Amino acid sequence: MTGIGFEILARDGAARAGRLSTAHGTIETPVFMPLGTAGTVKAMTPEGVAATGARIVLGNTYHLMLRPGAERIAALGGLHRFMNWPHAILTDSGGFQVMSLAALRTISEAGVAFRSHLDGSRHLLTPERSVEIQHLLGANITMAFDECTPFPAERDQVEASMELSMRWAERSRAAFTERPGHGIFGIVQGGVHADLRHRSAARITEICFDGYAIGGLAIGEGQATTFAMLEATVPALPADRPRYLMGVGKPADIVGAVKRGVDMFDCVLPTRSGRTGQAFTRAGTLNLRNARHADDPTPLDPECRCPACTGFSRAYLHHLTKSGEILASMLLTAHNLTYYADLTAELRAAIRDGRLAEFVAPGTAG
Amino acid sequence: MTGIGFEILARDGAARAGRLSTAHGTIETPVFMPLGTAGTVKAMTPEGVAATGARIVLGNTYHLMLRPGAERIAALGGLHRFMNWPHAILTDSGGFQVMSLAALRTISEAGVAFRSHLDGSRHLLTPERSVEIQHLLGANITMAFDECTPFPAERDQVEASMELSMRWAERSRAAFTERPGHGIFGIVQGGVHADLRHRSAARITEICFDGYAIGGLAIGEGQATTFAMLEATVPALPADRPRYLMGVGKPADIVGAVKRGVDMFDCVLPTRSGRTGQAFTRAGTLNLRNARHADDPTPLDPECRCPACTGFSRAYLHHLTKSGEILASMLLTAHNLTYYADLTAELRAAIRDGRLAEFVAPGTAG
Repeated sequence: MTGIGFEILARDGAARAGRLSTAHGTIETPVFMPLGTAGTVKAMTPEGVAATGARIVLGNTYHLMLRPGAERIAALGGLHRFMNWPHAILTDSGGFQVMSLAALRTISEAGVAFRSHLDGSRHLLTPERSVEIQHLLGANITMAFDECTPFPAERDQVEASMELSMRWAERSRAAFTERPGHGIFGIVQGGVHADLRHRSAARITEICFDGYAIGGLAIGEGQATTFAMLEATVPALPADRPRYLMGVGKPADIVGAVKRGVDMFDCVLPTRSGRTGQAFTRAGTLNLRNARHADDPTPLDPECRCPACTGFSRAYLHHLTKSGEILASMLLTAHNLTYYADLTAELRAAIRDGRLAEFVAPGTAG
Repeated sequence: MTGIGFEILARDGAARAGRLSTAHGTIETPVFMPLGTAGTVKAMTPEGVAATGARIVLGNTYHLMLRPGAERIAALGGLHRFMNWPHAILTDSGGFQVMSLAALRTISEAGVAFRSHLDGSRHLLTPERSVEIQHLLGANITMAFDECTPFPAERDQVEASMELSMRWAERSRAAFTERPGHGIFGIVQGGVHADLRHRSAARITEICFDGYAIGGLAIGEGQATTFAMLEATVPALPADRPRYLMGVGKPADIVGAVKRGVDMFDCVLPTRSGRTGQAFTRAGTLNLRNARHADDPTPLDPECRCPACTGFSRAYLHHLTKSGEILASMLLTAHNLTYYADLTAELRAAIRDGRLAEFVAPGTAG
C-alpha cells in the first residue's frame, strides 16, 4: 500500500462513513482527532486517549520543531515512539501556528521567516522544510504548507494568499517522500469567496493528494458562512478521497459539516474546555465551576462511559475544578474527548442506517 | 472487630513487618501513605494510586473542612465515595495545617480560632470538632487533635505545648465514636527533649489509642536528632500497636525510622517532587529539567514497573517537564509513589528475611 487508504463503507446524502488505512492502523470516519500539540494530548496518558476511542491524534509542527526539535525526535525513533502512541498521527504544517504564535514573521515566496515565541531564536519555515519536519516526526498524514488567510481580508488579498498557498502546495507535494501507509493532504484556501474556494479546490485536486483539507474556516466568519463555503468546496473535491475540515469545531459544527461531506476534524475545544471546567454532555454544555453542582451526587452524564462519569459525582468534579486540582483537567478532558468520540461514532451509525438527516448533536440545539 | 487490627508478622531488631486491618481493607506495614490533601492525590486518578501499590491515603481535615466542607462530604456519602477510593483513609486532625496555613490564629485551652486562607471566614477547631469532622469524612484512622510545637522553641514552651496536646488527646479520645474497622491514634509531642518525649509517650499510652503517632519531628531538627527522638520514644510505646512517624520523609529517613520500630509514614515529597520534575530512582534522585536528559532514550529507572518507566524515555520526560505539560506531573507522581511503595515492600521483605540491618534505600547513601 502506498499512501493512505480510504474506503467508503456507506453514504447518506453527501455524507460518508469510511475507513482510513495507515501504517499505524485503521481509523473509522467521520473522525475527530484530539490535539497532541507538543507531543502529548494535554492532561491525558496515551492509554487514556485510546480509551476514549481515538485512533489518530494531531501533532503540531510549529511546537515540535521549536521544542524538542524534529531532528531530536527522529533520533529518538520518531513521534509515535517519543510519545508512546502506537496509533496514527497527523501533523499540521506549522503554517497556521507560525502566524498566530511566532514573533517578527516575514512572509515571502520562499516561506515564513520568524522568531520562536519561546526563546527568540530565528527560523525559516518553507514548504520543503515543513514536509521534511513532518517526515522526521514520522507523521502518517503530512499536511501541505499553506498560509491561513486572515479573516476578514480584502478579496484581492485573499486571492493572492490562496494563490501563494497553491504554489506552496505544489512544492509540498514535490518534497513529500512516498512511503507505505503515509500520505500527504493538500489544503483548499480562498476565504469566504465561493469562486476562489472552487478555483483552489480544482488546483489542489490537479496536484493530486491522498486527501483534501479545507483550511481558513471557523476563524470568525460564522457557522452559516462556514457551511456555505463547504457547499462550494466539497463537490469540487475527489469523491473517493478523505476530506478534512481543519480546526472545527463545536458539536453542531461537526454534524453540519459531516452532512456536507466532511470526514475528518480537529479542534482545541474538548481538551481546552476540559482544563477550564467546561463539559460537553448529552444534556448540554456545563460549567463545573458553577455553585449549583456543589451538592449534586449525580454523574456529569449518566449515559457516558468515561472515567469521570463512571467514578465521580458532579459535586466532586465541582470541588476539583474550584480547587484547581490537576485531576479536574484529567477527568474533564477524558470526558470531553469521550463525548467527541461518541458523537462521531453516532454519526457513523446514523450514516450507515440512512438516518443522518434528522441527526442532532446530543446536548445541542442542532 | 472494634478499632483497627494490627498483627505483627515478623520482627528484625526493633523493626516489625505487620498488617493493619480496617473496614476498608488490610495494609501491609511498614507503609507509606500518599497525601490525598483535598480529596485527591494530586495529578493521580484513584486507580493510578492503587496501581502504585498504595492501599491507604491521607486526607487533610483543614483543607476538607474549608472546601468542600465536612458536612457536605458526609451528605455525599463520605470521603471514600466522594473521591472514589475504596481502600483505607487516614485523616490528620487539622492541628498542623491550621498553624502553617490559616490566618489570625488564636490558641486557647478550647482549641484554635482562625480565619480560612481561602476566603477569610472564621472557624474554631477543637479536639471535639476535629474528631467530629474526621467522623463525618469517614476516616478509618482518626488522628487526635494536637499542637505541632514549632522548632526551635524554648524548653518550657515545648513542655507547655506538649501538656496542652496531652489534654487535647484525652478530649479527642473521649469524643471518638467506636466503630468496627475505624480507630483513633494519639500523637506524642515533646520537641527534641528525650524526657518530654518519654513523658508524652507514657501519657498517650495511658489514654489508650488504636495506634501511636510521633509528631513534631522532621521540621528542621536534622536526621540525627529525629532518630535520637525515635530511640527515646518508641520503646515507651505499646509493642503490639502500630507506630506512625508523621510527615516523614526522604527514603533514607524512612529506612532509619523503620529500623527504629516505626510502621507508618506520610510525606509530601514524592507527590510534590513529581510536580517539579524531581524523580526518585534506584540510581539516585534526578532532576528531569536538567538538559543532560534531552537526548537520553533510556527509561527513568529500568527496574521500575511504573507507567513513566515502562512507556517513556528520559528525553520525553525532560521535554514534558520543560514544556510544563500536565502529563509530566502525572507520570512523575506515579513514578515517585511507585518508588515509595516499592521501597516499603522491600523493607517488609528485608524484615521477613532478617536482613534489615544492611538494608539501604535504593539510590541513597544510607
